[in-house]
Amino acid sequence: MKIEGKNPVKELLNSDVTIEKIMIADGTSDQELRVLQKQAREKGLKVEFVDKRGLDKVSETGHHQGIIAIYSEFKYADLDEVIAKTKAQGKDIMFIVLDEVLDPHNLGSVIRVAECAGATGVVIPSRRSATVNETVVRTSAGATAYMPVIKVSNLNQAIEEMKKQNIWVYAADMDGSQMHKTNLKGDIALVVGGEGTGVKPLTKKLCDGVISIPMYGKVNSLNASVSAGIVLYEAVRQRM
Amino acid sequence: MKIEGKNPVKELLNSDVTIEKIMIADGTSDQELRVLQKQAREKGLKVEFVDKRGLDKVSETGHHQGIIAIYSEFKYADLDEVIAKTKAQGKDIMFIVLDEVLDPHNLGSVIRVAECAGATGVVIPSRRSATVNETVVRTSAGATAYMPVIKVSNLNQAIEEMKKQNIWVYAADMDGSQMHKTNLKGDIALVVGGEGTGVKPLTKKLCDGVISIPMYGKVNSLNASVSAGIVLYEAVRQRM
Repeated sequence: MKIEGKNPVKELLNSDVTIEKIMIADGTSDQELRVLQKQAREKGLKVEFVDKRGLDKVSETGHHQGIIAIYSEFKYADLDEVIAKTKAQGKDIMFIVLDEVLDPHNLGSVIRVAECAGATGVVIPSRRSATVNETVVRTSAGATAYMPVIKVSNLNQAIEEMKKQNIWVYAADMDGSQMHKTNLKGDIALVVGGEGTGVKPLTKKLCDGVISIPMYGKVNSLNASVSAGIVLYEAVRQRM
Repeated sequence: MKIEGKNPVKELLNSDVTIEKIMIADGTSDQELRVLQKQAREKGLKVEFVDKRGLDKVSETGHHQGIIAIYSEFKYADLDEVIAKTKAQGKDIMFIVLDEVLDPHNLGSVIRVAECAGATGVVIPSRRSATVNETVVRTSAGATAYMPVIKVSNLNQAIEEMKKQNIWVYAADMDGSQMHKTNLKGDIALVVGGEGTGVKPLTKKLCDGVISIPMYGKVNSLNASVSAGIVLYEAVRQRM
């Protein structure tokens, strides 16, 4: 996979991701690029100098800003391991579970806000869902390097597993109880539905409860990342 | 301007926007399309039947779902009028002010969450900002039909004007006081900065205060619509 642009590459360099090589514009006088080049050298990474046309060719976004990093395939985390590790650290669990979020921009944006809010991980199903690709990495602003993303073959089974581990699972949907009046402390998972469909009925039924974001307008729907951000930060507030 | 797809056209039909005509797939048996067609007829609108190829030609998104509406240019609202009207209704003011949000998807998404949260309006500068175009209308999920969008020639002057009208203006940025501990009741305006740049120093200085979303990760930045959603819903919570 590749990532492009100064800030995304900078985030990548500061993470544990295995970087294969860094491609930098040949003969650049850009100070930021030089700092990144130095940092890559210090990490013992392969640095390749390429002319602008070469970078343009490799670029998928057209906004490489003179730097592109090639790195290894995304490594998904394991649900049980993440739960065990978080409990061992004495931290409260806060998962975001995405039920059929298909748009990679939405997935990237959810991973980004989950990382900012200090969530434990983002859980996605392996089918009928966006998975972590270059668009997701870019939209996440580098958060995929830090946030565990857990891909499960069956979302409902994963929810059952969480419940067994005493994690309280809430679906975020229209017909629930006020999120501001619901106790979101302790170990929780928040299930957010895909654009247009919401949380699937069977999945919702499995959850311990349904919480709603109050709606005062006529549109009455939010995209997945905005919903996730609002619910996560309400949980953050309650935990302060 | 045009809008495409069943749900966006449905929202448009329920709004006050001046619709010039509705284009519907010829000979469709789709029940939802028929309902929309009936609704358009009842509103006395011009309905045009076009074959699929014709709709594909007019479509910009490629996802017209058999229906496209053509409507008049977006009408921006006036700051003083919106303030006067809101005060006359005895409601508290809650503006979102966008400081150089350039991406139309972000603007659309902000308008969407502002509408859901019951905000008073979205204020944008006329230069160095996305303005309401078809992408914005689409991304807003139809919220542009309900949410006043106010385009001002000078953002700082608009903030001064708000302050004169006793609206408390907060910038949302990294170095502020905890938003959860700040009083967001009464008449307020929340200034959110553009992707990557944040609120400009001069604008920030003009504000009555700076509030921050707590950050627990390494990425430490959110996109404009997610930030706006989190801050708006904290204000909503405090007002309950």
